[in-house]
Amino acid sequence: MPDQRDELDGLKRIAAESAVAQVASGMMVGLGTGSTAEFALLALARRIREGLRITGVPTSEQTVARARELAIPLTELDGKGVIDIAIDGADEVDRNTLNVIKGRGGALLREKIVAQASARFLLIIDQTKVVNVLGAKPVPVEVTQFGWKATARRIEDLGAKTERREFITDGGNYILDCDFGPIQSPASLASDLDQIVGVVEHGLFIGLATEVHVGRAEGVRVLTR
Amino acid sequence: MPDQRDELDGLKRIAAESAVAQVASGMMVGLGTGSTAEFALLALARRIREGLRITGVPTSEQTVARARELAIPLTELDGKGVIDIAIDGADEVDRNTLNVIKGRGGALLREKIVAQASARFLLIIDQTKVVNVLGAKPVPVEVTQFGWKATARRIEDLGAKTERREFITDGGNYILDCDFGPIQSPASLASDLDQIVGVVEHGLFIGLATEVHVGRAEGVRVLTR
Repeated sequence: MPDQRDELDGLKRIAAESAVAQVASGMMVGLGTGSTAEFALLALARRIREGLRITGVPTSEQTVARARELAIPLTELDGKGVIDIAIDGADEVDRNTLNVIKGRGGALLREKIVAQASARFLLIIDQTKVVNVLGAKPVPVEVTQFGWKATARRIEDLGAKTERREFITDGGNYILDCDFGPIQSPASLASDLDQIVGVVEHGLFIGLATEVHVGRAEGVRVLTR
Repeated sequence: MPDQRDELDGLKRIAAESAVAQVASGMMVGLGTGSTAEFALLALARRIREGLRITGVPTSEQTVARARELAIPLTELDGKGVIDIAIDGADEVDRNTLNVIKGRGGALLREKIVAQASARFLLIIDQTKVVNVLGAKPVPVEVTQFGWKATARRIEDLGAKTERREFITDGGNYILDCDFGPIQSPASLASDLDQIVGVVEHGLFIGLATEVHVGRAEGVRVLTR
């Protein structure tokens, strides 16, 4: 009998395959970071072996390395090309708004830049990540090393408990896990965080996801706005 | 006869001395970056030789090096201590609101973190920097290297011409000089910039300056809110 982890991996895999099925030859594809995004890389690599021609835009050094192992062609994000589809995991997705908490993997800044530069942003999750109200999981916030304690205090003034992770991002910054409890207004919290000097970026992705592929025991369900 | 540069240096010097006169023993003092802030370092060093006891919080590696040469004791910004007074230069100051364009020296992120953590934020400028409407000078915007061209395009969508400076900040980012022309609403432009992913920080300092020491041929004038 499969244990729970194997079961969740199965759900992640079918969600990833459902999303990767949207990719067509000639596309520029944003490549996410983390354990669920890994299934999308595997699915893309298989389709490439079968003849799909795409170029990938990686969201982390980790994904660069993994994509190379899998022979997925890579390119850099420039100001001209539009990314056709970005595919990435998430920590929590609001089923009604498709607003998201993301970035536990520590790559939230590049993930968000790629999401923002993409015509379509597809999330792939297992069914345990779908919620009615965001906030059961902490919001990762990337902050500059300089003055990080003062920055943490300002985030706490917004109602969070903060904890610094033992981790340096690809951009050389720290990640604070910020537990706000249930977040009634994610958009206004996002705006408050944006305005704190020292906050480089945060894991609230508001209005960015265009569809969410949810792996469920009964098969994939696609949520759209 | 002094040339114009010498004359402006004289005005910067008296502005710096006027601001540094506000510093008292026991204070934690934010140390700015750039050619005007340099005069404040010199004035502080002289007062320290005369017995003043302070600790400085530097806003750049350049200021760290200069403060060490001048034997100004340094400390790090932590979450507990409040900086009593920060003293820094500016590119342009709105005479009515004390809103500011700042950061041509490339240290705007640390300058802003220190300003935000300070009970009093004193600007020192020569009289040519006082304006009725901000925007004759470009707003420096610090952006992540990753995806910087896409970020520049989003800033251009706000109405700016952008130009990347040949410069890497202490945080490892690029600086874009963003020419918006006359800025009718600096606060809302600041908020728009804050919300662009890839913008680490920008040179609009809104509501941060508590007093501005203006060096004029007729002597220093202090503007307050």
